[in-house]
Amino acid sequence: MKNICILDSTLRDGAQSEGISFSLEDKLKIVKALDDLGVGIIEAGNPGSNPKDLEFFSRVKMLDLKNSKIAAFGSTRRKGVLAEDDKNLQSLLDAQVDIIVFFGKCWDFHVTDIIQTSLEENLDMIKQTAAFFKERGKEVIFDAEHFFDGYKENPDYAISCLKAAADGGTGCVVLCDTNGGVFPREAFEITKAAASAVPVRIGIHCHNDCGMADANTVLAVEAGAGHVQGTVTGFGERCGNASLSAAIPNLQIKMGFSCIKEENLQKLTQTARLISEIANVWLSERQPYAGRSAFSHKGGMHIDAVVKNPRSYEHIDPERVGNVRKLLTSEVAGRSTILAKIQRLSPGISKDSPETEAVIKRLKELEYQGYQFEGAESTFELVIRKELGKYKPLFELVNFKIVGEQPYEEGSSATAMIKIKVDGMTEITAAEGDGPVNALDKALRKALEVFYPQIASLRLTDYKVRVMDSKSATASSVRVLIETTDGVDSWTTVGVSKDIIEASWIALVDSVEYKLIKDIEIKFKAYL
Amino acid sequence: MKNICILDSTLRDGAQSEGISFSLEDKLKIVKALDDLGVGIIEAGNPGSNPKDLEFFSRVKMLDLKNSKIAAFGSTRRKGVLAEDDKNLQSLLDAQVDIIVFFGKCWDFHVTDIIQTSLEENLDMIKQTAAFFKERGKEVIFDAEHFFDGYKENPDYAISCLKAAADGGTGCVVLCDTNGGVFPREAFEITKAAASAVPVRIGIHCHNDCGMADANTVLAVEAGAGHVQGTVTGFGERCGNASLSAAIPNLQIKMGFSCIKEENLQKLTQTARLISEIANVWLSERQPYAGRSAFSHKGGMHIDAVVKNPRSYEHIDPERVGNVRKLLTSEVAGRSTILAKIQRLSPGISKDSPETEAVIKRLKELEYQGYQFEGAESTFELVIRKELGKYKPLFELVNFKIVGEQPYEEGSSATAMIKIKVDGMTEITAAEGDGPVNALDKALRKALEVFYPQIASLRLTDYKVRVMDSKSATASSVRVLIETTDGVDSWTTVGVSKDIIEASWIALVDSVEYKLIKDIEIKFKAYL
Repeated sequence: MKNICILDSTLRDGAQSEGISFSLEDKLKIVKALDDLGVGIIEAGNPGSNPKDLEFFSRVKMLDLKNSKIAAFGSTRRKGVLAEDDKNLQSLLDAQVDIIVFFGKCWDFHVTDIIQTSLEENLDMIKQTAAFFKERGKEVIFDAEHFFDGYKENPDYAISCLKAAADGGTGCVVLCDTNGGVFPREAFEITKAAASAVPVRIGIHCHNDCGMADANTVLAVEAGAGHVQGTVTGFGERCGNASLSAAIPNLQIKMGFSCIKEENLQKLTQTARLISEIANVWLSERQPYAGRSAFSHKGGMHIDAVVKNPRSYEHIDPERVGNVRKLLTSEVAGRSTILAKIQRLSPGISKDSPETEAVIKRLKELEYQGYQFEGAESTFELVIRKELGKYKPLFELVNFKIVGEQPYEEGSSATAMIKIKVDGMTEITAAEGDGPVNALDKALRKALEVFYPQIASLRLTDYKVRVMDSKSATASSVRVLIETTDGVDSWTTVGVSKDIIEASWIALVDSVEYKLIKDIEIKFKAYL
Repeated sequence: MKNICILDSTLRDGAQSEGISFSLEDKLKIVKALDDLGVGIIEAGNPGSNPKDLEFFSRVKMLDLKNSKIAAFGSTRRKGVLAEDDKNLQSLLDAQVDIIVFFGKCWDFHVTDIIQTSLEENLDMIKQTAAFFKERGKEVIFDAEHFFDGYKENPDYAISCLKAAADGGTGCVVLCDTNGGVFPREAFEITKAAASAVPVRIGIHCHNDCGMADANTVLAVEAGAGHVQGTVTGFGERCGNASLSAAIPNLQIKMGFSCIKEENLQKLTQTARLISEIANVWLSERQPYAGRSAFSHKGGMHIDAVVKNPRSYEHIDPERVGNVRKLLTSEVAGRSTILAKIQRLSPGISKDSPETEAVIKRLKELEYQGYQFEGAESTFELVIRKELGKYKPLFELVNFKIVGEQPYEEGSSATAMIKIKVDGMTEITAAEGDGPVNALDKALRKALEVFYPQIASLRLTDYKVRVMDSKSATASSVRVLIETTDGVDSWTTVGVSKDIIEASWIALVDSVEYKLIKDIEIKFKAYL
């Protein structure tokens, strides 16, 4: 089984994404996640570019990495300067890492028009930069910038750039589709030509401006590349890089190459989600392999078929990459899906039991009101519990009142007062917030914490509002989805009402009750 | 220049996405947008599946479409039933459209294990369904479900399914990678084999489960396909479909095929954004061609190079697809677009006028806060007016106060009190409504009607809420879009705030002011 060296560039090319800005702590967390996943090389920035990066390199040395090596990234020496006198090359040495990745121009147009030097000097810059690091005991990787565009206009020159890097002692030359405009057949043919022209390892670095990054990566490997660059989430300049969360399973599960340890494949999904969480950038629901919808089935016919045999509508078993199958409970969902969920709570109940009928009737009523349980499995479970008698309210709302006003004096624009009862004891409190829902959320949790201290660990991680049939405008029904975490698990609940406050309230209450019911059940089981 | 027939499946496969649920009005808006872009065929759902879809087909007939035809979508006849007796086929006829798309099984495993019939009966089902529609004067398209997976396991049978469809009178057989697991070279080779085996037009329908949908689409066309299916935004089952916002420019700009009218290419970006706005689903910032970051440059070296020559880091000119270049650390993009709007109000102003600078500066500030002016042209115009001094507030808010409570006595859950001033006269009033925004909307209009009776003709027709950065949960910023009509025109305004009431208020005020300013201008012109 051929090994493919995987280089993740989240900290370098990923950090070039619009809207991404990593703190030092963010970077260290990402290094740990990537090491845990087991990529071969983690590319970080240029220690010469700013002091934060220099501090990163000194901190990262203190981590005890199991699988990954850290690489520093920079460019060739500047034109007309000796490598020994180039401050940027010196600062790359200061990073004190084993691997140096440097990029250089391979497209003649860039040499003459952008950096404005001679084609010969550019070759010297590449060769001498490689030699500079090689002589100092580094493993050297050359990023051949714009290699494909350069090859299409001047193949001889593009290849001579790779040769210059190899001559200087580079162990791996990486063909970059820097502008992301290369098409699959070109990616294959040009990689093949490069692989037969230079005697070192060939790498591939794709951008997704035409939607081709993941395909070009696979095709380059088929054409002989043995080193793959990308970012786990696909973050990167403009439309992003090839997604390693797609490249790794594509190469390893589908094509039989070895990229990371087999047992680590199942960490792919969580790693992609963790990195996007740290980056505070939304990971597409539709991200291949790792997205929340990647194995979601909504059409009734699809659901029935997947229940018969998952292979009918799944290209792989989601568990292999740590993702899960979701049978979305939509209007079209089959009875068998619902029954499976009922039986998880009450194994004795059958398809024809009156309880099953009651649950289905209740679901239909709720769907008619605008409820939708896809991605709101926790509310769905509570609905079933209520019908099966496996639910006891954990508090009673006496009342709440919310006041919002404009203009407002200082601080927050909304205030919520709430009064609840638990086991005959009353708690009344208030909170202010950014808008009525935020104020109510805070007030409810403040009141409940008096009785249930574990509420303190809860944190809302997502809040979505969907106006349904928005034709009725501000009097339309709204559906509110809330995602909550206690640091370990996360769950989603839903509420529907014409009043956004009431809809949010319903979802908030479900969110808290779901958590408390789970806790009580675990405690109860421990006593059995 | 070879024509490629483009079929958009947003209303069918796109509606199968997790989290997407289109109202009837949403669907009609999407039809208009797709027709305006100029795709050949718009695939809608199955009129037999629910009454909402039947109403859609009767409403869509009343639209005066310029470019697109509507197709109804269904399956083959059921096993063991005559086509004439199959209710689903009948309901497809009831849609009264010229084009019928039907799908059938091509993977032997699906025939025997999922629908559980004989291989022969399945061929009859395909052929007889095609014939049924052909005999009734329809143009027939066959979606060959799981064609690639089927071909890989039993090529003869998969091809015989295509032949059955062709024999029945199908004009186009569409090779579907239903599970999204096909790799680029397979897509090319298998499409080539199919194209040489059947004498009708070949289509391609890809899913993105391995990140290959856009590449496989291009490769299938290179192998002979002349019909391309997808969704403009890439929405669809699981990881989604091929994105037409990538496929169309890939085929038309890069490969010289003709998909839509050349002058419509520049509508691609706005169409993709409009559809995702209607679907209330984020369009990835990194969406090829149409994403907000697709032509964003952040690295200093990239920016310098792009300023020298955009070709250095851009694979196409963003304006060709209606997108704009963003130099993230320096100058704003789309200056010419903004200038055009300014000149509509003040023809004398030039590109370098201080007024233009001031407008651009203000727009950047608002965008930074989360404003987005696509589909909110009226707020955009008001922003420009305010900077140009062509705006006078039509009323002054003294204050408002909103009270929401649970449980509530009777009637409405929220009450709004408002006090405004017009020309020194004060009006104070109150209204109740379904939730705080509805109450505020009613109270504002009640107060304004005293001074501006024409307000009575206004009606809100759409209200959308988008939670931005939903990770901050109930304290996230929200963007509210409001569409208003006076029975003749309709216009859309936008507001952003952390408080949903404030965001709604901003959009409501813009909505009313836009109308009143227009009325005054018309009256004024009549006196000239």
